[in-house]
Amino acid sequence: MKAMVYQGPGNRSWQEVPDPEIIDDTDAIVEVRAVTICGTDLHILKGDVPTVEPGRILGHEAVGTVVRTGAAVRTIAEGDRVLVSCITACGRCRYCRIGMFGQCLGGGGWILGHRVDGTQAEYLRVPFADTSTYKLPEGVADESALMLADILPTSYEVGVLNGKVGPGDTVVVVGAGPIGLSAILSARLFTPSHIVAVDLAPARLEAAKRFGADVVVGPGDDAAAAVAELTGGLGADTAIEAVGVPETFELCTRLVRPGGRVANVGVHGKPATLHLEDLWIKNVTITTGLVDTYSTPTLLDMIAAGRLDPTAFITHRFALEEMEAAYETFANAQDTGALKVVLTR
Amino acid sequence: MKAMVYQGPGNRSWQEVPDPEIIDDTDAIVEVRAVTICGTDLHILKGDVPTVEPGRILGHEAVGTVVRTGAAVRTIAEGDRVLVSCITACGRCRYCRIGMFGQCLGGGGWILGHRVDGTQAEYLRVPFADTSTYKLPEGVADESALMLADILPTSYEVGVLNGKVGPGDTVVVVGAGPIGLSAILSARLFTPSHIVAVDLAPARLEAAKRFGADVVVGPGDDAAAAVAELTGGLGADTAIEAVGVPETFELCTRLVRPGGRVANVGVHGKPATLHLEDLWIKNVTITTGLVDTYSTPTLLDMIAAGRLDPTAFITHRFALEEMEAAYETFANAQDTGALKVVLTR
Repeated sequence: MKAMVYQGPGNRSWQEVPDPEIIDDTDAIVEVRAVTICGTDLHILKGDVPTVEPGRILGHEAVGTVVRTGAAVRTIAEGDRVLVSCITACGRCRYCRIGMFGQCLGGGGWILGHRVDGTQAEYLRVPFADTSTYKLPEGVADESALMLADILPTSYEVGVLNGKVGPGDTVVVVGAGPIGLSAILSARLFTPSHIVAVDLAPARLEAAKRFGADVVVGPGDDAAAAVAELTGGLGADTAIEAVGVPETFELCTRLVRPGGRVANVGVHGKPATLHLEDLWIKNVTITTGLVDTYSTPTLLDMIAAGRLDPTAFITHRFALEEMEAAYETFANAQDTGALKVVLTR
Repeated sequence: MKAMVYQGPGNRSWQEVPDPEIIDDTDAIVEVRAVTICGTDLHILKGDVPTVEPGRILGHEAVGTVVRTGAAVRTIAEGDRVLVSCITACGRCRYCRIGMFGQCLGGGGWILGHRVDGTQAEYLRVPFADTSTYKLPEGVADESALMLADILPTSYEVGVLNGKVGPGDTVVVVGAGPIGLSAILSARLFTPSHIVAVDLAPARLEAAKRFGADVVVGPGDDAAAAVAELTGGLGADTAIEAVGVPETFELCTRLVRPGGRVANVGVHGKPATLHLEDLWIKNVTITTGLVDTYSTPTLLDMIAAGRLDPTAFITHRFALEEMEAAYETFANAQDTGALKVVLTR
């Protein structure tokens, strides 16, 4: 089969590789119907994630059809259309048994396209298939479901729910890429009074407005002043960090009101400075997290019921064999305006 | 009257000052029956709290008798025995109306011995007296109530409750001074399985054992190894920071398990490094806070009912006019073994 293989920092290739096989009896083999590319894949390609070894098939988001299951698999069968989540869950460890699948101790967590071969391929092996896939309802299109493989549950759980967004709140989202936009979209489910989007790129701020931000803060603007004006000088109820660099995290801690929440969603490679000399007295709550995907079934139900439409994320569509072109388009988002690219068979 | 006056960095004096007067009709004048000294007073004396101006009477903890009330005061009257809390609350602002008195926007918060004259005196003026004092039940001794002026609600609210300590948890308390010991005492109300105390001073670790720590970690010991042994390698459910320096905060973030909580109680003067490159994926929650004192009535009830006994904090007793000697004893805690000193009329 063909797959996108990481060849060490700076190098990737869409190349012929052996078909995946059942290794454990809890595995399933899934034929990929739709797949996307994540900012994390670009980080890997830069060499930022040293746990990914050369030769690894990339990707952790897919919708596909089950073509084979191991002897222990019970809940999915050949022919089922499934969402393959970015989080693999053994389903049996201490963390899985309290719904914290992202922290799985039994060999799961974020492993696809990281510690085992991933989804950017014609077929993939899904470990712990019963507890790592979601059978798709009829009314949910492949590409809508695909947005639930990572970005929507990530922004919803780690940003909006951890950040305890509530009715009437002023929410700041720093970074208006797919994760930030997804935070804006899912924050709206709680009817905040204001959503302020902060980004450097005008095109992303335009996207933020389309997704539901009512105030946007660009490079020349003063984020603190904008938030102060909306909140009578108090600060934001929740600030969601959706970039992953120290500066944006520190900005979030400055924008939040006494008693407010900073929800970090960004993937960080460097430490940040925590200004405890200011923050110790402010009663702030700071959360971090990898997505657990406990919200995925609910979000799927909402798509099926027409209460959530994630198709606006999809800016470019490709055939699976156009993987190289899709990477080029996604990697050059500033020029192409790409949010999420979808590749289908 | 006599009072302990801050005379600029390094200088204090127990001296004659004018008696306090009613300024606002919400004020009360309280005759001090019992007062104590806080680590924060020592910080002020070092010059670490520049908002305290020379000439300020120090202290933010007292039990006393109401001797006069302003025309608008309704709930306390001459002769009442009251706890004067470290937190003054206007009772009317946005934060006070949701119980976040520490963040009072109406002129309260931590003001006693800070922005207005404090409790280390024969008399004091208590602003917003209705919402900043607690009438004491008969069965509660002055010195027991005095422990609720600051340390117990602080450690309980900002450490134990913010840190969501629960039954069966492994709790690490870094710093075993009065605040850390108070965190140990109040953590026990939730029946954790293990309380690990970390400190540099052997005498404080002995005190930690008396207050309920079952494991103590001294200068030569490996805190991470001790916690790992208790938790099967996972880490602490809650780590409570009770020192206020970057190193101890950073230690807390290393000791906590995925999904765990770091509750900062310490008063910080410098920024800390937040290792987001490790923490972003760990689903940790970090909280900061000044005490709100919303728990004070409950803690008073518990003392009255014999469910909580804070007298073990009191290591030294003085007469009020021995204020200088009490400061010497408290400031040299390493030699004197002082936890809390109480001065009474």
